[in-house]
Amino acid sequence: MSNYPKSSRNTVKRSPKRGHYDKETVYQILDAGYICHIGFTIGDQPYVIPNAYGREGDTIYLHGAVGSRMLNQLEKGTPVCVTVTHTDGIVLARSAMHHSFNYRSAVLFGTARLVPDDQKEQALFVITEQIIKGRWDEVRTPSEQELKVTKVLAMKIEEASAKIRTGPPKDDEADYELPVWAGVLPLRVATGEAIPDPAMNQALSVPDSVNNYIQGSTASKSVL
Amino acid sequence: MSNYPKSSRNTVKRSPKRGHYDKETVYQILDAGYICHIGFTIGDQPYVIPNAYGREGDTIYLHGAVGSRMLNQLEKGTPVCVTVTHTDGIVLARSAMHHSFNYRSAVLFGTARLVPDDQKEQALFVITEQIIKGRWDEVRTPSEQELKVTKVLAMKIEEASAKIRTGPPKDDEADYELPVWAGVLPLRVATGEAIPDPAMNQALSVPDSVNNYIQGSTASKSVL
Repeated sequence: MSNYPKSSRNTVKRSPKRGHYDKETVYQILDAGYICHIGFTIGDQPYVIPNAYGREGDTIYLHGAVGSRMLNQLEKGTPVCVTVTHTDGIVLARSAMHHSFNYRSAVLFGTARLVPDDQKEQALFVITEQIIKGRWDEVRTPSEQELKVTKVLAMKIEEASAKIRTGPPKDDEADYELPVWAGVLPLRVATGEAIPDPAMNQALSVPDSVNNYIQGSTASKSVL
Repeated sequence: MSNYPKSSRNTVKRSPKRGHYDKETVYQILDAGYICHIGFTIGDQPYVIPNAYGREGDTIYLHGAVGSRMLNQLEKGTPVCVTVTHTDGIVLARSAMHHSFNYRSAVLFGTARLVPDDQKEQALFVITEQIIKGRWDEVRTPSEQELKVTKVLAMKIEEASAKIRTGPPKDDEADYELPVWAGVLPLRVATGEAIPDPAMNQALSVPDSVNNYIQGSTASKSVL
């Protein structure tokens, strides 16, 4: 797969060895999540809002109510930054200043456009399936009225970078002598037991989408 | 505790019932995390960068290398947005469009100032302790040289809002009849077993800071 173009906007300046520009790495980070932080500016004020997303190729779909201030601003075609971050571990060094995180983050740049009515449902399918695969086929799909009051935007990824840290702490040479425990405390997103809606017929059993999600999240434990 | 002032900048417009403006709620969300997403603008381009933080009263401390583009930009006193998000569960409704998340997020607005040299160490203490309480006393504290190459900024929270969703899905009245499993899949950040640095004397045992963190994270399972 190809690389994203590098510019002053997306070039990783701090710890440049942790920077990646190939689409495969960026896609992997995006596909491992479903909550992004969307950055946009109104006047000179930046805003950072968490939101669900779905990826299809180099397109990021975002959705919300038609009255959403954020979506209305993005729809104007102003520059957007979308960031997805996974925190994989706390890196515990022998010195305070070498503490760090193991993480994977992707920072995307582009502009958004309105998804036309006849492509809305496909975009909502992509977002829903990104959150929990297989769920779309288990539920009632959107009505015409629901589609009407939902705004869907598509942001083409123009430039992107990934930044990844893995492995043990890196201490100053002299500090390796210190009698201080050092290492990594792995972190991951774990699922609890699915909690049925009290308003539901309790005879219904937990669906495949949820069981598969739980199994997948157990299987994907972070490693050093 | 008092409330943050409400303006067009921090008033929650979508699902306003989920909005909170009291300091206690905002502080609780901030104190439950240590990674924020920092939004800033250069020219007309917004950037969203994940970073560690520490809170002390209404001050958010951020740090990095003296050459950091982000910190150099924030130091100019341009408007900043700092957002902290916790995803507590996937809300599985009977219809695709009513899928949602249980979450707690805090969106902070302010401007940053440089922390003077004689207050840097205290600010770094706050950041380190926010990540893992008790660690500061276990490790080598910063040297003069380390402090010299580290930039620390303080952002006073001028305005803020929290947004919280809890509880089961909310479906359209007619959909409650559907034979579709609905409920919440709880999510939480779980710790794995601490992985010692291979370069370390393996006789050293896992310190209190790490054991306490693991116990705390096990105790704080999300609930519906």
